[in-house]
Amino acid sequence: MSKGSLFIISGPSGTGKGTVCDELIRRGDVYLSVSSTTRDKRANEIDGVTYNFTDVEHFKQMIDDGSMLEWACYNGNYYGTPREAVEKMLYAEKNVILEIEPQGAFKVREKMPEAVLIFIIPPSIEILKSRLIGRGREDNEQIEKRLDAAKWEFLQAGRYNYIVENDDLQGCVAEVAGIMDNVVKMREKVRRLIDEAEQM
Amino acid sequence: MSKGSLFIISGPSGTGKGTVCDELIRRGDVYLSVSSTTRDKRANEIDGVTYNFTDVEHFKQMIDDGSMLEWACYNGNYYGTPREAVEKMLYAEKNVILEIEPQGAFKVREKMPEAVLIFIIPPSIEILKSRLIGRGREDNEQIEKRLDAAKWEFLQAGRYNYIVENDDLQGCVAEVAGIMDNVVKMREKVRRLIDEAEQM
Repeated sequence: MSKGSLFIISGPSGTGKGTVCDELIRRGDVYLSVSSTTRDKRANEIDGVTYNFTDVEHFKQMIDDGSMLEWACYNGNYYGTPREAVEKMLYAEKNVILEIEPQGAFKVREKMPEAVLIFIIPPSIEILKSRLIGRGREDNEQIEKRLDAAKWEFLQAGRYNYIVENDDLQGCVAEVAGIMDNVVKMREKVRRLIDEAEQM
Repeated sequence: MSKGSLFIISGPSGTGKGTVCDELIRRGDVYLSVSSTTRDKRANEIDGVTYNFTDVEHFKQMIDDGSMLEWACYNGNYYGTPREAVEKMLYAEKNVILEIEPQGAFKVREKMPEAVLIFIIPPSIEILKSRLIGRGREDNEQIEKRLDAAKWEFLQAGRYNYIVENDDLQGCVAEVAGIMDNVVKMREKVRRLIDEAEQM
């Protein structure tokens, strides 16, 4: 068991999982692993901070090498999580957080079976829908697509270690932080037991 | 998602996981699935209650059919969990508990990815050892073997959904019961969200 723990946060678009992750990172509970992408860097972005910007050839090479924990292609651009970066942080006793959708989450679990999967749900579909509308980024058709995708994602929730409701942000952040603290504490106890067993 | 949930309890010999399971069943929180075995029935045992007693040929047929969720062979006798019995209980909205070791637990998770894996740990190796000695069933060499096996099992704990310490029995039972209640409650919420999404 590595000293740090890997937490994966999923949940349909509009559940506020991004805000939950931002808050956990701001509090210093966990660290974000920097993803790689082949899309163009925007003016306000910093290579190695916002993303590791790379080209398609190098990205595909990393997929073939097994160096990507998970990856996906949206609108012709590749996005992925480099395995080495995550592992380095875990071995440095840092807890790492990844915000990815269920298929990616299960791929990561295959490669790193100690990953802790946390699924964030909204209080109701009505609220989910109104959050999506409130963001004002999408038209009705796109919102319908989001809700269809949400339904599929909900069907995956049973495979997660934990399901947490995001009713109010601070309550949800406190609950996820509590889960993380407990995982870290119990794994520390198990490591102590292994040490004791070795000294017998 | 089936209406009942499947809980798998593991933990090294001497952690008291059997007593924890017995207590959860006695309280009516969960139901035990009856295992199958090829060993001879003892005088005080009832076929279909203690075990489903069967012969080697039939047992092997069930393995080949994929009808065994997991199985193992100890001292020439086969023991296993028939998949159909577990699934029937889950669809009847019953929560099922299986007490099995890590390799079996991971096999079950492959077949039923919504299984909730709970690993029970002792407060210390000293206490684990004294519990094993206190049972008076084994000699020193067997106890050493148990402790070696425990070390291997501890290394698997990171793959479990939950790790719970068995310091005092009632506290541990309450904690596991609390986990079960929470899983059931959150899965019920997810089912409600799926229903809501379908009615949109």
